[in-house]
Amino acid sequence: MVTDSFLDHIDQLRLELNEQLQSFRLDLEPRYLYDPIKYVLNGKGKRLRPIIVRLVGDVYGASKADLLNAGLAVELLHNFTLVHDDIMDHDSLRHGKATVHKKWDESTAILAGDGIYAIAQMLLTRVKINPLEAVHAFNKATLYVCEGQAYDKEFENNSGINLDQYLKMVKKKTGWLVGFCAELGGILGKQSKAVIYELRSFGLNLGIAFQIQDDILEIFSDAKNMGKSLGSDVISGKQTILTVLARQKDSVEWKEKWEEIRKKNMPIAFKKLRTYFNENGILDAAKMMAKDYTDTAQNSLKIIPTGKRTQLEQLTEFVWKREK
Amino acid sequence: MVTDSFLDHIDQLRLELNEQLQSFRLDLEPRYLYDPIKYVLNGKGKRLRPIIVRLVGDVYGASKADLLNAGLAVELLHNFTLVHDDIMDHDSLRHGKATVHKKWDESTAILAGDGIYAIAQMLLTRVKINPLEAVHAFNKATLYVCEGQAYDKEFENNSGINLDQYLKMVKKKTGWLVGFCAELGGILGKQSKAVIYELRSFGLNLGIAFQIQDDILEIFSDAKNMGKSLGSDVISGKQTILTVLARQKDSVEWKEKWEEIRKKNMPIAFKKLRTYFNENGILDAAKMMAKDYTDTAQNSLKIIPTGKRTQLEQLTEFVWKREK
Repeated sequence: MVTDSFLDHIDQLRLELNEQLQSFRLDLEPRYLYDPIKYVLNGKGKRLRPIIVRLVGDVYGASKADLLNAGLAVELLHNFTLVHDDIMDHDSLRHGKATVHKKWDESTAILAGDGIYAIAQMLLTRVKINPLEAVHAFNKATLYVCEGQAYDKEFENNSGINLDQYLKMVKKKTGWLVGFCAELGGILGKQSKAVIYELRSFGLNLGIAFQIQDDILEIFSDAKNMGKSLGSDVISGKQTILTVLARQKDSVEWKEKWEEIRKKNMPIAFKKLRTYFNENGILDAAKMMAKDYTDTAQNSLKIIPTGKRTQLEQLTEFVWKREK
Repeated sequence: MVTDSFLDHIDQLRLELNEQLQSFRLDLEPRYLYDPIKYVLNGKGKRLRPIIVRLVGDVYGASKADLLNAGLAVELLHNFTLVHDDIMDHDSLRHGKATVHKKWDESTAILAGDGIYAIAQMLLTRVKINPLEAVHAFNKATLYVCEGQAYDKEFENNSGINLDQYLKMVKKKTGWLVGFCAELGGILGKQSKAVIYELRSFGLNLGIAFQIQDDILEIFSDAKNMGKSLGSDVISGKQTILTVLARQKDSVEWKEKWEEIRKKNMPIAFKKLRTYFNENGILDAAKMMAKDYTDTAQNSLKIIPTGKRTQLEQLTEFVWKREK
């Protein structure tokens, strides 16, 4: 059960992270580079990834300083990928603000992303425990995020993509980085390879559940809640859990329905999409999948001694039940 | 004096590096990510940066395996920055081949660059001696390259940029990375902070000389030699040593001349530019500056015991005298 005291704790951690990101010392010049970087650091985010590093690290008594540097590093890594992905996906809104390439231009956004990634690594090399292991895993995770984004682009507008391919994409695009965050908590807490493997497995499955939930919310939440334009993934021909499951259920019917829907204007198209996913059990099937991955994640948490894993169990439940 | 046996040695090192880059084991999929990365690794390049790592490392008896991983890492870092810079600068030709964003598209090029950077760091974490110091300096150098590129973009079409600002840009855009390569050879060769500082200073000044020479060759070489479209920097309003010195000499005259030249078609404009830089002593002044930075670099090399620095002295002379 997600308790109020857990939610307070998470809010507190998020607050601390936001303060650290906003007070992060950066050079003033060149403004072409540092203005957009500061803009990104001042953005709102769930801070899910550094919170996982922190909660896992706390279980194993990792040092506060290490967890701070590592937490900032993963949040910056995440933001670097968002800035570049937003260019590639032509997204104009992120966390309720204009994306970097919309506010400035593409060149500025490319360079800001690169700079954020370099800063992230400089922070990570500051950790005192197992820094090299941390840096190696950090870059492996980054490469996997790139692979995931590559699949995402490759699969665009390809009506032959099946559930397995979707899951391969999501595992790399979202799963690995969340998995790495849990792994990082274990690395900084001097855990064995076996424990670290299980921690990563926890994060990996949590990340997949998170992405499936994200795909659902993109259609069934409202734009104000999500802070980004909704439905854009489906409309731009991205593979989402809902479209993949709809295709798996009845590809001919889905194709016809989709051809009909995409001709309509936005509010009507949106309503029709929701109705279709709802009435054909697609929404329920997607929710069930998110629940399955959440359960698998919970299961991996058993590697952590009883009594010490309550917070991570609540976080996992929280991610699955979130509405934004 | 640049001897034939030195040139043979450099050719041999370049050959080895090219083989390593081409036989570099990469996943096959997703092809969206790995096809362009392989394309970049198969490109031709001077391989100046890894050659510097190798020559400095050899002076101090660094291990072959470390120098191999570090050399590949810096060459990949350099290529990552080229792929992204080519997008920002709208360049369509690099080492005689279409740039990634021209052959594919911008999204592909953004992602390929990111992937190359991640792979570079995974390679660097493999070194056995002082890996953490190496990784930290690597990312600091990357951030400085980003700063340099930011100045480059910021200064575009700004006719108020003076020589000091130009040098600040070049120091970060080109100098630091070359400086880091020399530094890396010292790090892997277990040298003291004082020696490493001097080695970096050598590379930094060599890098500045290299960039000045590059600016000159962009106007006074021919396209076939350089493997890229010539004159594009000047035409697109970039700050180069020639335009900055022309402005410094007589800003009113240069402004008039430039307004006249930019209205002409390409071969004529080019010829007129050459004549102006030649007849007004701009070319000579630029060459003199390259020579000065080369001399400063040579001076820093004295930190290396006599008899052990011959190759690096020849490399420095070679860079300054190069015609492509």
